[in-house]
Amino acid sequence: MNKVCICGGSGYTGVELLRILSHHPGVVVTGVTSEKSAGKKVSDIFPHLAYYRDLIYEPLDREKLLDKAEIFFLALPHGASQEAVHFFYSKNRKVIDLSADYRLSDPAVYEKWYNLPHAFLSTLKKAVYGLPELYRSRIRKANLIANPGCYPTGAILGLLPALKGKIADVSSVIIDSKSGTSGAGRKADITVAYCEVNEGFKAYAVGTHRHTPEIEQELSLLCGRDINVNFTPHLLPVDRGILTTIYVPLAKKLTGEQIVKAYYQAYKNEPFVRVLDYGKYPNIKNVRGTNFCEIGLKLNEHTQTLIIVTAIDNLVKGASGQAVHNMNIMMGFAETTALDMVALYP
Amino acid sequence: MNKVCICGGSGYTGVELLRILSHHPGVVVTGVTSEKSAGKKVSDIFPHLAYYRDLIYEPLDREKLLDKAEIFFLALPHGASQEAVHFFYSKNRKVIDLSADYRLSDPAVYEKWYNLPHAFLSTLKKAVYGLPELYRSRIRKANLIANPGCYPTGAILGLLPALKGKIADVSSVIIDSKSGTSGAGRKADITVAYCEVNEGFKAYAVGTHRHTPEIEQELSLLCGRDINVNFTPHLLPVDRGILTTIYVPLAKKLTGEQIVKAYYQAYKNEPFVRVLDYGKYPNIKNVRGTNFCEIGLKLNEHTQTLIIVTAIDNLVKGASGQAVHNMNIMMGFAETTALDMVALYP
Amino acid sequence: MNKVCICGGSGYTGVELLRILSHHPGVVVTGVTSEKSAGKKVSDIFPHLAYYRDLIYEPLDREKLLDKAEIFFLALPHGASQEAVHFFYSKNRKVIDLSADYRLSDPAVYEKWYNLPHAFLSTLKKAVYGLPELYRSRIRKANLIANPGCYPTGAILGLLPALKGKIADVSSVIIDSKSGTSGAGRKADITVAYCEVNEGFKAYAVGTHRHTPEIEQELSLLCGRDINVNFTPHLLPVDRGILTTIYVPLAKKLTGEQIVKAYYQAYKNEPFVRVLDYGKYPNIKNVRGTNFCEIGLKLNEHTQTLIIVTAIDNLVKGASGQAVHNMNIMMGFAETTALDMVALYP
Amino acid sequence: MNKVCICGGSGYTGVELLRILSHHPGVVVTGVTSEKSAGKKVSDIFPHLAYYRDLIYEPLDREKLLDKAEIFFLALPHGASQEAVHFFYSKNRKVIDLSADYRLSDPAVYEKWYNLPHAFLSTLKKAVYGLPELYRSRIRKANLIANPGCYPTGAILGLLPALKGKIADVSSVIIDSKSGTSGAGRKADITVAYCEVNEGFKAYAVGTHRHTPEIEQELSLLCGRDINVNFTPHLLPVDRGILTTIYVPLAKKLTGEQIVKAYYQAYKNEPFVRVLDYGKYPNIKNVRGTNFCEIGLKLNEHTQTLIIVTAIDNLVKGASGQAVHNMNIMMGFAETTALDMVALYP
Repeated sequence: MNKVCICGGSGYTGVELLRILSHHPGVVVTGVTSEKSAGKKVSDIFPHLAYYRDLIYEPLDREKLLDKAEIFFLALPHGASQEAVHFFYSKNRKVIDLSADYRLSDPAVYEKWYNLPHAFLSTLKKAVYGLPELYRSRIRKANLIANPGCYPTGAILGLLPALKGKIADVSSVIIDSKSGTSGAGRKADITVAYCEVNEGFKAYAVGTHRHTPEIEQELSLLCGRDINVNFTPHLLPVDRGILTTIYVPLAKKLTGEQIVKAYYQAYKNEPFVRVLDYGKYPNIKNVRGTNFCEIGLKLNEHTQTLIIVTAIDNLVKGASGQAVHNMNIMMGFAETTALDMVALYP
Repeated sequence: MNKVCICGGSGYTGVELLRILSHHPGVVVTGVTSEKSAGKKVSDIFPHLAYYRDLIYEPLDREKLLDKAEIFFLALPHGASQEAVHFFYSKNRKVIDLSADYRLSDPAVYEKWYNLPHAFLSTLKKAVYGLPELYRSRIRKANLIANPGCYPTGAILGLLPALKGKIADVSSVIIDSKSGTSGAGRKADITVAYCEVNEGFKAYAVGTHRHTPEIEQELSLLCGRDINVNFTPHLLPVDRGILTTIYVPLAKKLTGEQIVKAYYQAYKNEPFVRVLDYGKYPNIKNVRGTNFCEIGLKLNEHTQTLIIVTAIDNLVKGASGQAVHNMNIMMGFAETTALDMVALYP
Repeated sequence: MNKVCICGGSGYTGVELLRILSHHPGVVVTGVTSEKSAGKKVSDIFPHLAYYRDLIYEPLDREKLLDKAEIFFLALPHGASQEAVHFFYSKNRKVIDLSADYRLSDPAVYEKWYNLPHAFLSTLKKAVYGLPELYRSRIRKANLIANPGCYPTGAILGLLPALKGKIADVSSVIIDSKSGTSGAGRKADITVAYCEVNEGFKAYAVGTHRHTPEIEQELSLLCGRDINVNFTPHLLPVDRGILTTIYVPLAKKLTGEQIVKAYYQAYKNEPFVRVLDYGKYPNIKNVRGTNFCEIGLKLNEHTQTLIIVTAIDNLVKGASGQAVHNMNIMMGFAETTALDMVALYP
Repeated sequence: MNKVCICGGSGYTGVELLRILSHHPGVVVTGVTSEKSAGKKVSDIFPHLAYYRDLIYEPLDREKLLDKAEIFFLALPHGASQEAVHFFYSKNRKVIDLSADYRLSDPAVYEKWYNLPHAFLSTLKKAVYGLPELYRSRIRKANLIANPGCYPTGAILGLLPALKGKIADVSSVIIDSKSGTSGAGRKADITVAYCEVNEGFKAYAVGTHRHTPEIEQELSLLCGRDINVNFTPHLLPVDRGILTTIYVPLAKKLTGEQIVKAYYQAYKNEPFVRVLDYGKYPNIKNVRGTNFCEIGLKLNEHTQTLIIVTAIDNLVKGASGQAVHNMNIMMGFAETTALDMVALYP
């Protein structure tokens, strides 16, 4: 049994890691941190985690934690993660960082969007962007994973075959995303109060969301040229799920069926991507609680525009599930270990 | 007091007409039809309409209804409305049709999208598209109003100043809309069952929704050239509200503030359009139960794309409220009569 | 036009007062306070209140407010209200207090449940409990109204005819209430965060909720003897509404129809109480946004138990609507002025 | 691998059986029936069930199904289940019936509440009421299980230790239950349409719900005397979950802590019942998607009333999970096999 420690275990992604890992036969959670809840039992704060009856939150004392585990998941706020990642990584631990701190390879871009310099440039260079569908072979050998953001996961998986296959003209990329409220994290904040979110729907951070450079970085790498996107996030009155609707001009003459075929082909060996039949579209409800990404496709022939719709659970494929997937790859477990959930429907 | 009759008064738009008209000092509802509920009291089917304690649903017997009212609101399914509209119109009644039957001026387009020929072409020619912000002076003199669809209302109001002011390049128009479930109507159908919609979100009718030609007709008229749009509707787990996010390339060099100013200017005399300050975005919750359309604007300078976000209540500005607004204009009432609601928040 | 000032105008009850008063032809809101939002425009914090475009939040400076209005609504937290009420009342203003500070006539009971002594005993004696169905004639002459709590309103209205008519045996009174989340107030608190409330349901403060002594006080006065009740509140994942299910043993042989008749009789002149036909039950959705209380009744003949179900909107009949009703009575306005809403359905 | 067949596999309980059994290492689903969807792939109707890619709905042809499996789950409407159960049982199959047809041991009571005679009295006598906490040893030897109703499960588990320990005075038993909408089944019906249920809450079938005699049967057996209860179901705007609040007079002098201790003791060996510390109350959100029943307790000392609050997921512990639990006991699997889920939170 491999020992796992979760730093930042009282937010929604930390709690979701605990849920998923409870079904993993190859690891045991030996430590979990929370500054606010230090000293309290996990199951006192989260009664549904009664499985972890003996696990107690502790403060993030790095030296003390070091001996507790071989694998560290970090679900800390950005900024706070920089040093912690560096510490555990430099002590030869496997590190999977769920924050944004090691996702942007260009420290200038990071500083511009997060208003923070990056203080660990050599460690930053070692980080592998943890999207298995794109970087599986590098993840296998990595010791430091920058786990992708939730929005970028849905956006990149939607565009990947279209870009690789030169199906889309990338001069105009429009990404219209709608996320459940757990994406905002577990916090006491009036903007996520029930009566503010319920029966409401709005766009926010239009053109300024911090996931924009992450999407642009990966699309640019894929295409070998600088790509700018229009990315608009919206807040959905649901707990979980991101639906992303993407619009790109068609780059060459193809039928809708041909495009679907290209997507099937691109993802045929991927355990967590499901390409739907032409004319069928995903629903976040069908992936809830699971690590799946579902993709629906439509070619608008009047406008020669390809419309791609993807659905993920922001806490699973968009965060903790993908993190466990990365761990499985790094550690040589079967990739679907602990991730073979069926969606909770209804 | 002007007498009003509602044909099709047991669906959500019919019921919403009853709610709104209960506050109108210039009209009295003298008849309301429903085939399914004929003979039953309105307040037995809809307890919240206790105000109409003596109103009883009756079958749509045109001859009998004719003498009951001067003004007819028709909230019938498309197709069913064609003949009823023609009948009341030809008998010199004021008719406001909430169906799609008289919205498309080209009968060939109507037939293509609705799989039905139009049997009343001369009446069709008399219909005025009832978007007051666009056709106020014609509405004033009209006897037949084709009340706009819910999605087209939010889309056209969002684009109007950008097209009139030649701010947008209309070669690419992307309209990504999200509607509350009441938009699907009041019906026993598994696709709108609570457990199917709740905690879900999906796109539907991608590129094939029947509101597409209606949007294209009005945008083409505005621009004096044929315009094709990408229109994608989505189903929101809320009762009411449509948020529409529109993406158009910028046609000339402008700042975001200049664009907002142009929008303010365009709508400064409109009682039901609120242009928000630059960088602020609407929320469907803020217009719930009201006839307002709120508009937020953002210029993405990297991509030179204008992003327009509009919010309406699909049952009010998107249907029954706009219908009453049209009646107010036709009949010479103050335009805001019965429409000066404050949104129900929270 | 009578001038009205609202102290504590940025919580849900304050905002609801603004919504309701926007339709009142006899009053004008001349001042509204908020410590946190002082200096900001009401419509900047609450875009749906664009009607109040020129109203600006100010701090609660009593001396300065005094000259602004004849009528003061106080929507402050309990404790904070004690002195403010006393001040405005002693300066001969009409005061309607929405807090709990002047509801309990026995200061010892107040101190026990609120952990606070009451410092204004002579003013406390002048307060009239503002349930119009019970104290209309006293309200008419009052200058200080203690506006009832939301739960007590639903509970007392449900029991009133049964107690007055000696239909119920009050030795066992069980009140099982379910409230929408706005009842918890507008606050940044993890317990009312969207993801904590949504798809959840729980009981809270079982047997210890502060509305218990308020219910017991009024029932005891009605019956002329001390009454203890079992009161259990629950938190509903909806914005608004309280449904209360009450169980009392039958005190004498009656049929269900006879009981309904007694309720009809008791409330026949009440503009805001609707007794439903026997076997019909209210739904909070049917009273949403309105000042109505709907009551359904059932006699379980096997157990000889009377089951009473009441529905109100906690922010209207349970708070701000009832406050305006009280003002209407005090000021001689027609009772339904500004309160003749039709519920927002769906 | 034991072969399992599900008759009635396109409703919510059938689909939930498929979800749960997908994780069961000891069984394989070899057949699933649906009259309406016969011939269609399960995963075409329910995309989240992609795991069952090769499973196709077939009509309920009893002879044909007989050879397909050793274990039959029947999730048919009541009435329709009578004969099917009898058939498979008489052919020596293990049968777990999720309908109400074999729950009431007295056929006269069944006929009275379901308006149907029972045609298979000798088979009815063989049925064991499948509440493992009450009848584990009989279930072990049974071939026919009448799987309990969702409401009775939450009610009986809440009362069991209080009745066995003679803590409660059963002369007055009040059971106030609130259920998520999936309890109404998967159907096209206006009463469960999204816009009717959302933001609403109501009581229904007050004193007349068909689960009443089932609760009364089991409580009467437990107490050795006839017991009548007041049972009131309510409809919650959530997908899943039943919270039941029970009120019983205390039968003997005890403290709250003593009562909690008695409950702990009663359930200490039960894998699926969690008794909470005194003063803590369950939330349906904490058991969502799981087979757990959580119980909170409160003694109201003023009224000497015991208040018991239980939470279950109506589709799991209230239906399909309990059915699998029964199968595990019948077949000698570890009881928690396939049922060790952690709740989906948030």
